[in-house]
Amino acid sequence: MVKIQVKNSRLFMSFLFTLSRYAIREPAAEFLGTMIFVVFGTGVNCQVFLSMNSNVESVPRGDFLSLNFGWAAGVALGVWIAGGISGGHINPAVTFTLAVFRGFPWKKVPFYIFAQLLGGFCGAGIVYANYFHAIDIVEGGPGIRTISGSGDLLATYAASFLTPVSCFFSEFLGSAILIIGVLCITDKKNGPPPQGLVPLALFIVVLGIGASLGMNTSYSLNPARDLGPRFFTAAVGYGTAVFTYRDHYWLWCIVLGPVTGMLCGAFVYDMLIFEGSESIINKA
Amino acid sequence: MVKIQVKNSRLFMSFLFTLSRYAIREPAAEFLGTMIFVVFGTGVNCQVFLSMNSNVESVPRGDFLSLNFGWAAGVALGVWIAGGISGGHINPAVTFTLAVFRGFPWKKVPFYIFAQLLGGFCGAGIVYANYFHAIDIVEGGPGIRTISGSGDLLATYAASFLTPVSCFFSEFLGSAILIIGVLCITDKKNGPPPQGLVPLALFIVVLGIGASLGMNTSYSLNPARDLGPRFFTAAVGYGTAVFTYRDHYWLWCIVLGPVTGMLCGAFVYDMLIFEGSESIINKA
Amino acid sequence: MVKIQVKNSRLFMSFLFTLSRYAIREPAAEFLGTMIFVVFGTGVNCQVFLSMNSNVESVPRGDFLSLNFGWAAGVALGVWIAGGISGGHINPAVTFTLAVFRGFPWKKVPFYIFAQLLGGFCGAGIVYANYFHAIDIVEGGPGIRTISGSGDLLATYAASFLTPVSCFFSEFLGSAILIIGVLCITDKKNGPPPQGLVPLALFIVVLGIGASLGMNTSYSLNPARDLGPRFFTAAVGYGTAVFTYRDHYWLWCIVLGPVTGMLCGAFVYDMLIFEGSESIINKA
Amino acid sequence: MVKIQVKNSRLFMSFLFTLSRYAIREPAAEFLGTMIFVVFGTGVNCQVFLSMNSNVESVPRGDFLSLNFGWAAGVALGVWIAGGISGGHINPAVTFTLAVFRGFPWKKVPFYIFAQLLGGFCGAGIVYANYFHAIDIVEGGPGIRTISGSGDLLATYAASFLTPVSCFFSEFLGSAILIIGVLCITDKKNGPPPQGLVPLALFIVVLGIGASLGMNTSYSLNPARDLGPRFFTAAVGYGTAVFTYRDHYWLWCIVLGPVTGMLCGAFVYDMLIFEGSESIINKA
Repeated sequence: MVKIQVKNSRLFMSFLFTLSRYAIREPAAEFLGTMIFVVFGTGVNCQVFLSMNSNVESVPRGDFLSLNFGWAAGVALGVWIAGGISGGHINPAVTFTLAVFRGFPWKKVPFYIFAQLLGGFCGAGIVYANYFHAIDIVEGGPGIRTISGSGDLLATYAASFLTPVSCFFSEFLGSAILIIGVLCITDKKNGPPPQGLVPLALFIVVLGIGASLGMNTSYSLNPARDLGPRFFTAAVGYGTAVFTYRDHYWLWCIVLGPVTGMLCGAFVYDMLIFEGSESIINKA
Repeated sequence: MVKIQVKNSRLFMSFLFTLSRYAIREPAAEFLGTMIFVVFGTGVNCQVFLSMNSNVESVPRGDFLSLNFGWAAGVALGVWIAGGISGGHINPAVTFTLAVFRGFPWKKVPFYIFAQLLGGFCGAGIVYANYFHAIDIVEGGPGIRTISGSGDLLATYAASFLTPVSCFFSEFLGSAILIIGVLCITDKKNGPPPQGLVPLALFIVVLGIGASLGMNTSYSLNPARDLGPRFFTAAVGYGTAVFTYRDHYWLWCIVLGPVTGMLCGAFVYDMLIFEGSESIINKA
Repeated sequence: MVKIQVKNSRLFMSFLFTLSRYAIREPAAEFLGTMIFVVFGTGVNCQVFLSMNSNVESVPRGDFLSLNFGWAAGVALGVWIAGGISGGHINPAVTFTLAVFRGFPWKKVPFYIFAQLLGGFCGAGIVYANYFHAIDIVEGGPGIRTISGSGDLLATYAASFLTPVSCFFSEFLGSAILIIGVLCITDKKNGPPPQGLVPLALFIVVLGIGASLGMNTSYSLNPARDLGPRFFTAAVGYGTAVFTYRDHYWLWCIVLGPVTGMLCGAFVYDMLIFEGSESIINKA
Repeated sequence: MVKIQVKNSRLFMSFLFTLSRYAIREPAAEFLGTMIFVVFGTGVNCQVFLSMNSNVESVPRGDFLSLNFGWAAGVALGVWIAGGISGGHINPAVTFTLAVFRGFPWKKVPFYIFAQLLGGFCGAGIVYANYFHAIDIVEGGPGIRTISGSGDLLATYAASFLTPVSCFFSEFLGSAILIIGVLCITDKKNGPPPQGLVPLALFIVVLGIGASLGMNTSYSLNPARDLGPRFFTAAVGYGTAVFTYRDHYWLWCIVLGPVTGMLCGAFVYDMLIFEGSESIINKA
């Protein structure tokens, strides 16, 4: 029998404090990394599109290339924040794919995904708090909130000329390329950058994806980046239309698109290139 | 005499599977690297030019600098994908030049070039699948496909005011500079970046070439990047004009331009700077 | 008793010279780093906005993305200049936060802050000397100096539609994210870049902050970057309005915003992620 | 007495060949590096400004930020080409300053400067050969060549509203900052990037200088970058006006500006920061 005699309650509290910090360190890192990532990304959406309205600024504060750089910088900083602690997934589809293909522990998956979604929600909230005055001007008043007016600055919606299959394909494709990028720049048997420069390589990869495959569905590629802000917009007055849009677009395009795309991309990478024994394909 | 008794057919299949994967690993890496490179590059062409049409998007999704960043990011990711496996040529002219000047095995050359061309073809197909709705809008309907309408988003064509000699010179020049860049940033006796950051240096080199020498012929500099998509456009309705354009432009400009330019660039670099014994010039 | 006999006055002068150089090396590095940073930043403001006036240039010499790159490059070079000598804070709020959270010696704090403010002042003076002809054209004459005409190219002012709370929040938020970026890319127990590439990572972080959170208050995030130029503009004819603007905006937004934002950001980073014993939180 | 008996003339020729290559290796590297640097830089000038003419292209092939990226990429590649062989100065003012402040051998200085000037001349010739058709369209015909029409794409000229002192100051200032950047990112006692990534840091520095201080005099900062192309334009029909412009602008602004600016910048850096014994200041 072990009996812990606590003679110093202050020391005990400090011990509990440290223990709880260590227990949640990994999800906390995912939370903070995803939150900052979403702040950068939805922030640049707001800055560029809101400032195009001449009632807000006399000249726009950025152009379309700014959007690609903002999202790319967000991914880079998010991974620098969380990389050394939790692996820096900041994306539920990445976490899920690494669990399937790289032996990432399944028991951690729900905690990671919850932390990422919470990070996306809080990131959108922070950006909204920063830009709500300009949103009021663009929408026409504090009580008016529409998806096409400003809701699409936070969550993603598809171009109107696309069929559902094309929406899905666009997210599927971008996600497959993203995971191939993630896997190759962290593959020690390939030619990866030094550990601490993985975020720099991701910066380039995400910049390129946004510049080349971002038009159709605004390249969410990440359920936390979209669902977190989508919940937030539902909560602050954009209504349930954010979920019912296009017959539950959020589910089949924003969730299933990235997940299946990343599984497919990881399968292709592992079949053609990966040699490490941690892949399920090389265990066969 | 060696007799292999297969008692476990599942194990034998697994052995064959592994054997065949290893046998094709290098061309497979070239295929995947070139494909992703072409997806980024032709993807950014489509995104920028299609979104300039006001029937597609209300505001363009990128500008001309986006094109340079998209192609540069494509090269970087393509080389990160293939670099550690096959050397990351992702360009038949590079493969050919390294065979002539650096002792790259000639017997591998046809496999590399075939894989690169196939990668270019598939990359164009993927981008076409992603953007065909927008192409339909720009061309005026699903059955209409013209070179000037959207064919030049996938394969390259020259500015109309150029003479054939100038077309050739433009591809020759860009290719010579590209190979000088490739050779200096992989030359261990010069001042190269760390191995895993070669793609980052190529990112900068290709960004610069596109910004400064990309106007005349759209800087193909790579037969796989152009011929793969050119075959694809011929197959999906742009017709044989993609090959007969300007008296077989594809051959004398797109193939011979990069090949001769890179041979010339490599000769200049090796004469003036290279000290390694693997160059044929230093073996003399 | 120690008696120093100086037989060679030239040698003694040289000794004094060397001694004084070493004594001020750290503040001198902060001064030079901050000065160059402010030259880049306020320089790009002047180049982009002054060249938009058709009396100055026929076409603008940059766009809004240029601003983000100019400020980002300024931070990077500033930290490369000062990083190895003084730590490369180039920001009083960073110096203060590191004193609170990382044990940076309090006795150095006033020297650092004075050097940073002086650097900001001199940097603004250099840029003003470079661009005063163009400022004359834009303002309408050498004797005319207004905040909205050119004063806002050097010091920062808020968008007119913002409430004071929103101004403060915008600086608070950007500063919190900046310090989180600084702390994570220098945290050896996380996944930081190599020492000499910290400025490259900061380049990306500052690029992202400017692209996504720069619209409301022009992202000063740094009292030296703003107060130095603000003093300079007060001195060269913009008048005391630069200080009385919006009820001492410079104090509650430009000084308190970054300081409180960085304290808050550092607290969040240390609570959630930091493991090093130098943090006051881990000493508890 | 040493008597060399040549029994094999082929071997002797090969020996002479190798000997002469080694003898000129350093100037040859400066030549090639400067040439490629000027090809990128003047190439991006031509691409951006020529394509703004609607008779050349329907839409411009780049914008003003492209110019900054093109010049920055040119410097980066130029230094990767020459860095490990000759130090990668690619700038006579850098060579001169390093001779004064860092003990670079004076006897090499004339060879370096000649090679750099020749590189600038040839680089301009290559770009001219690539773009002369478009220049013909913009100028109005093959026989018409004017400074304001296309001569300023190769050599630099000042904004018309500037006084001579301001022209000089602008080049002086940019050059001072450039050499401070060069010295700090190669200073082993400060916090420099890894050897092979010095060009990457220069990329950022030159990007920032161009974005923030490039408006007045087009930031030559380099006599070889300007005089080489200036000689070339004089030779191909722009006339002697390229030298008589503004009372020998080329001499007092393009040559003396960078030289004095870099001497001043190096003095400031060495006084405030540099600790290495190779500086003349630390030898005192």
